[in-house]
Amino acid sequence: MDMSTTPQNPATQWTLARRAERMNPSVIREILKVTERPGIISLAGGLPSPKTFPVAEFAAACDKVLRDDGPAALQYAASEGYGPLREMVAARLPWKVDPAQVLITTGSQQGLDLLAKVLIDQGSRVLVETPTYLGAIQAFAPMEPEVVSVDSDDEGVNVDDLGRKGPGARFVYLLPNFQNPTGRTMSEARRAAVSARAAAIGLPIVEDNPYGELWFDAPPPLPLTARNTEGCVYLGSFSKVLAPGLRLGFVVAPRLLYPKLLQAKQAADLHTPIFNQRMVTEVMQGGFLDRHVPTIRALYKSQRDAMLAALQREMAGLDVQWNSPDGGMFLWVRLPAGVDAVELLPRAVDKGVAFVPGAAFYAAGGDPRTLRLSFVTASVDQIHTGIAALAQAVRETA
Amino acid sequence: MDMSTTPQNPATQWTLARRAERMNPSVIREILKVTERPGIISLAGGLPSPKTFPVAEFAAACDKVLRDDGPAALQYAASEGYGPLREMVAARLPWKVDPAQVLITTGSQQGLDLLAKVLIDQGSRVLVETPTYLGAIQAFAPMEPEVVSVDSDDEGVNVDDLGRKGPGARFVYLLPNFQNPTGRTMSEARRAAVSARAAAIGLPIVEDNPYGELWFDAPPPLPLTARNTEGCVYLGSFSKVLAPGLRLGFVVAPRLLYPKLLQAKQAADLHTPIFNQRMVTEVMQGGFLDRHVPTIRALYKSQRDAMLAALQREMAGLDVQWNSPDGGMFLWVRLPAGVDAVELLPRAVDKGVAFVPGAAFYAAGGDPRTLRLSFVTASVDQIHTGIAALAQAVRETA
Repeated sequence: MDMSTTPQNPATQWTLARRAERMNPSVIREILKVTERPGIISLAGGLPSPKTFPVAEFAAACDKVLRDDGPAALQYAASEGYGPLREMVAARLPWKVDPAQVLITTGSQQGLDLLAKVLIDQGSRVLVETPTYLGAIQAFAPMEPEVVSVDSDDEGVNVDDLGRKGPGARFVYLLPNFQNPTGRTMSEARRAAVSARAAAIGLPIVEDNPYGELWFDAPPPLPLTARNTEGCVYLGSFSKVLAPGLRLGFVVAPRLLYPKLLQAKQAADLHTPIFNQRMVTEVMQGGFLDRHVPTIRALYKSQRDAMLAALQREMAGLDVQWNSPDGGMFLWVRLPAGVDAVELLPRAVDKGVAFVPGAAFYAAGGDPRTLRLSFVTASVDQIHTGIAALAQAVRETA
Repeated sequence: MDMSTTPQNPATQWTLARRAERMNPSVIREILKVTERPGIISLAGGLPSPKTFPVAEFAAACDKVLRDDGPAALQYAASEGYGPLREMVAARLPWKVDPAQVLITTGSQQGLDLLAKVLIDQGSRVLVETPTYLGAIQAFAPMEPEVVSVDSDDEGVNVDDLGRKGPGARFVYLLPNFQNPTGRTMSEARRAAVSARAAAIGLPIVEDNPYGELWFDAPPPLPLTARNTEGCVYLGSFSKVLAPGLRLGFVVAPRLLYPKLLQAKQAADLHTPIFNQRMVTEVMQGGFLDRHVPTIRALYKSQRDAMLAALQREMAGLDVQWNSPDGGMFLWVRLPAGVDAVELLPRAVDKGVAFVPGAAFYAAGGDPRTLRLSFVTASVDQIHTGIAALAQAVRETA
């Protein structure tokens, strides 16, 4: 075919939806693309350590699933998810969950997309922590909510501010365990108070818990959902305990919401890949996670300790502050007065280290002196080198 | 923990989004659930024949991908999709496609969800064929369009009706090859006329082509997108040429839309499972599809022929009409005057055969005498038995 004669009509009237006109590439994502070049130590991304991926177990599981039940593992499947996997998910949660309440999703990110479709009208108020997971704001955005930040401190959201802003909101989105981006954990006392206040004002809670199993010394307090099962939706993920590249997550939903989420799921991608669901079900047989997850905890704890030691040593005298997370993947840093993390980033990259400026994680505005460091992707040696380079960049900027 | 003391607050104010209030389980889906019991021959579902799944090739590919590059195949990955797969997709299409225009999706169903987000505002007019793919209407519905049916005949949409209804519409959704549900194919003359009319009125086309490779005697005419690359979005799928359970599809988008679709993709599920993408890339090495797809074509052609022969024999004297599709998976039947397909279904199920009433596929109203038969899931013996049972049900109803 001679393409040069193909008629082209430049006048086709593509009209973007209003929500799409507002979609713009994140400035920070654009900066971070530069940091992906070889030689840069990335403390930026939220990538689990590939050392934790059980590659041999996955290979054995693929083989078994295809050998025993290949055609069914490759066919269309139920939108709810694979029955045995839903049962395993329910059984692992620390409160009584009926497998019929479990919806398997294509990563827990999809759970946020489905909840947005089912719960958000244009202009609906949605509450988030300060700061919060950027991907949640991106998932909610197409439904055009008004996103409102609730004041937050080291223990999570401020209960009085939640009480003020909560009435009439569609839900509050909370990440109580080893939060992305700050690494902070909501204390038992704060959970009890948040749960009681939300219940008192009838405010639904969307509880996101991708990192909860990655505790270092002791498990975090009981989830908010366990305290009010009909008032909360719970999101979980296999990305941090097995591997993110399979895109497997789940939602535990109250009976009122489940059928609507299921219909939204069916419209979104029919079902989550059944091959991946069967593979993970096979890997999880015989209590594999009970043996595997402690090895991830030990690795990440040693990496957190390395980063704390490096910060202690390198930031001496620099008026830099940081926290010491009890689990998860991230640590939160506050720079000296007058140092803006967005401005610091290119200087740090010049010295060979990348991070994510905190500004990326605020629904509106935010503290320009904050930044997020991941302690799980880089090696211990890289952490020491990277933190030294970061300190040098701060020293030259402050 | 004693769950009986967990405080429950029945007053949580779950407020559903308006779109979710309108979501209702399909009546027909509920009927079809009954038909899933053992012993019923299903000519209803759109399930590819599991005989066509290359199980051994998938097993070898899993093994190779995990052995050669396990950690990368299990890690987070780019939202655009896996580079080598995007190149293979572009190279297989019958017009010049830059791999940078290819977005890998979690099944082609997700492509419809992303397009809805990027192109539909509340009340936007969207045109569809009569009848059309039910899943597309479900994917568009959360964005609350006004869905308008364009008159259609055996060759596809009526060009004059398209010209009348097109101005101001966001797009027309077309399935030109072996359409679901009718099995019909848009002729070369109709494609030329549709393409010219759409271009003349500036109407964007969303072209869905999951079945295009499943032709029996000759390939279908060139896609609409090949005739006006900047005026069309094209959706494709691996579900019918490899296996649906991996959920792999793709969108080829004009440069204007690509960045917006990419952002919607990222918000929806971050990326399509990279393990699945690498597995399929590995299977496709060395021209596998060029050897494999002809075997699917031959199988489905023999099954279509079996169904045509069975209809010819069993429906004699019954005033039932049907078409003879040139490819794909479905055949369209029109019942005698006075026989309603929704009412016929439970009687047919009593006799051991299931189908989908045509009413399921109309955006509004529709011809109650129509029904869809799949000729690919059941065996040739089952097709003969099933069509005989269907004829008996018609005979007792007419």
